[in-house]
Amino acid sequence: MSQTSLSEFSLIERFFARRASRHPHGAELGIGDDCALLAPRAGQTLAISTDMLVEGRHFFADVDPHALGHKTLAVNLSDLAAMGAKPRAFTLAFALPDAREAWLAAFSDGLFELAERFDCALIGGDTTRGPLNLCVTVFGDVPPETALRRDAARPGDDIWVSGALGDARAGLGVARGEWTVSGADAARDAAAFRHALERPEPRIALGLALRGVARAALDISDGLAGDLLHILERSRVNASVDAGAVPRSAALSRLPGDVQRRCTLSGGDDYELCFTAAAENRAAIAAIGEQVNVPVTRIGTISALKAPADQPAIAWHDSAGAPLFLTLQGFDHFHAD
Amino acid sequence: MSQTSLSEFSLIERFFARRASRHPHGAELGIGDDCALLAPRAGQTLAISTDMLVEGRHFFADVDPHALGHKTLAVNLSDLAAMGAKPRAFTLAFALPDAREAWLAAFSDGLFELAERFDCALIGGDTTRGPLNLCVTVFGDVPPETALRRDAARPGDDIWVSGALGDARAGLGVARGEWTVSGADAARDAAAFRHALERPEPRIALGLALRGVARAALDISDGLAGDLLHILERSRVNASVDAGAVPRSAALSRLPGDVQRRCTLSGGDDYELCFTAAAENRAAIAAIGEQVNVPVTRIGTISALKAPADQPAIAWHDSAGAPLFLTLQGFDHFHAD
Repeated sequence: MSQTSLSEFSLIERFFARRASRHPHGAELGIGDDCALLAPRAGQTLAISTDMLVEGRHFFADVDPHALGHKTLAVNLSDLAAMGAKPRAFTLAFALPDAREAWLAAFSDGLFELAERFDCALIGGDTTRGPLNLCVTVFGDVPPETALRRDAARPGDDIWVSGALGDARAGLGVARGEWTVSGADAARDAAAFRHALERPEPRIALGLALRGVARAALDISDGLAGDLLHILERSRVNASVDAGAVPRSAALSRLPGDVQRRCTLSGGDDYELCFTAAAENRAAIAAIGEQVNVPVTRIGTISALKAPADQPAIAWHDSAGAPLFLTLQGFDHFHAD
Repeated sequence: MSQTSLSEFSLIERFFARRASRHPHGAELGIGDDCALLAPRAGQTLAISTDMLVEGRHFFADVDPHALGHKTLAVNLSDLAAMGAKPRAFTLAFALPDAREAWLAAFSDGLFELAERFDCALIGGDTTRGPLNLCVTVFGDVPPETALRRDAARPGDDIWVSGALGDARAGLGVARGEWTVSGADAARDAAAFRHALERPEPRIALGLALRGVARAALDISDGLAGDLLHILERSRVNASVDAGAVPRSAALSRLPGDVQRRCTLSGGDDYELCFTAAAENRAAIAAIGEQVNVPVTRIGTISALKAPADQPAIAWHDSAGAPLFLTLQGFDHFHAD
């Protein structure tokens, strides 16, 4: 909270500091000092993640500010979910081109509605004038021995994903005019895609329930193909994945097959969890999915590298087991999507 | 570390992740997973601060990237110093218009040289393409009972500042052409001002030594007048300050009197500490200043509000005790400076 005063301070006070103080239990000392103070909790380690969202890159300039407030925090909470961490607090730094009151009111509403659902307190921040930029750092508690790390996958593990993949990418494609929805359900499909793009749901309850049951996990922000590879590289293993088993919504199933594949396998912004678990935990994972009301789908298997120095890779196949030779690439912020 | 892959990932790997791994002791799990894991330390609370730096607002477009790397972390470490916290780790999120290798090499050198001096580990981050924006969140340890909070000043306390104030603002004025340096020492003075603006020194050792000795503290980022007011408002007290006692460098003393006053009292970017302490601690504070090799100067006194509902205020006077009626305003990022 340094570098704040006067009109900037009243802006923060009005839209952020007041609501921040509704959650004093999250921190010993919140907004208004040089630092926030966050007391450790017995048996817990602090999980920390930071994400920066930029106009034109992560959202359109005319995005609904309420949805943007939601998404700004949601993508960070999703990182906690992927670690099996319980949300606790966050900081928000942002640059705004000007002090737009109506925009800030809607943005802060979207942000705090999600924060309050997950009991996650705003404990600090910074504001400045500049091209629109939103940077959240989020803090959660996790017992260190049950954290869902990317380096924990083992040969023989099943590979699972939560929810359905590709709807957010389908929504981006509609907005960009890459493809169109048609048929009797066109309006409903378009709305579903847009909702997926603008209001991702962080899978917190699933992440918490998977502690001690799953091995490796991450959230799919850049597309399944690229993100699963991060698990493989960190765990030094290979994967075999049934591309046909990757779950997709009814809406996405109405788009052409090549669009479905592109969206489910390399689309970004899904914020579903991809995780691995021992085969003996299949029933437990299915039960967890029912308990937290999130579909979980088994899509493949982890295997050992053929030689220790091999580059980890994904072998894709169709539902009949025939190999697929796909050229897929994760979303890369220094290349065009 | 979500939303990273391929070329972006190799960029991070080359300039940041490798050097981050030199400090594995700072965290149980650093860069490369969904979250970093930071284990609590016995008897310590985590002090957390976040600052965002924007081109054209906090630095010039043509700034030396090595100096910018230094300053990006320094302003955050300064917040830890102001809390009496010992640096431990930080995250870095940044937006870059393009992947400029030479720029990143110099920036990361400046950043890590400071990080290594204070044993502060990079544990996570995010990179994206966009208008240049740098957001650091920093973590430090402090025993909660000795944290230097803004709300701890008491009537009768002395008011102290570290170092000399105003050189950074003098450097900004020279760069902007608001004033010029002249005389035999002109080149040396200009270099000193520029150094103050570009390479602020976080007063970590002083902040640590002041634990249990000082009461309230903050770092002066927006000018003494505006920042001291934050202590007064949070502590519900008044202050009386001798404007002539506010320490300034020999270089600043060679500028006109009105420029000296403007720079020392309302200039930003000093990153010196302003703190209060009981009068019986004067000798202890002088000894601490010598021990950590940072000048400390007593500039005024805290007093009680005349009525409980009063707005806290600073009464300025000259060194002879005559009242000064100054119109001073702290730096405000939603107004021109």
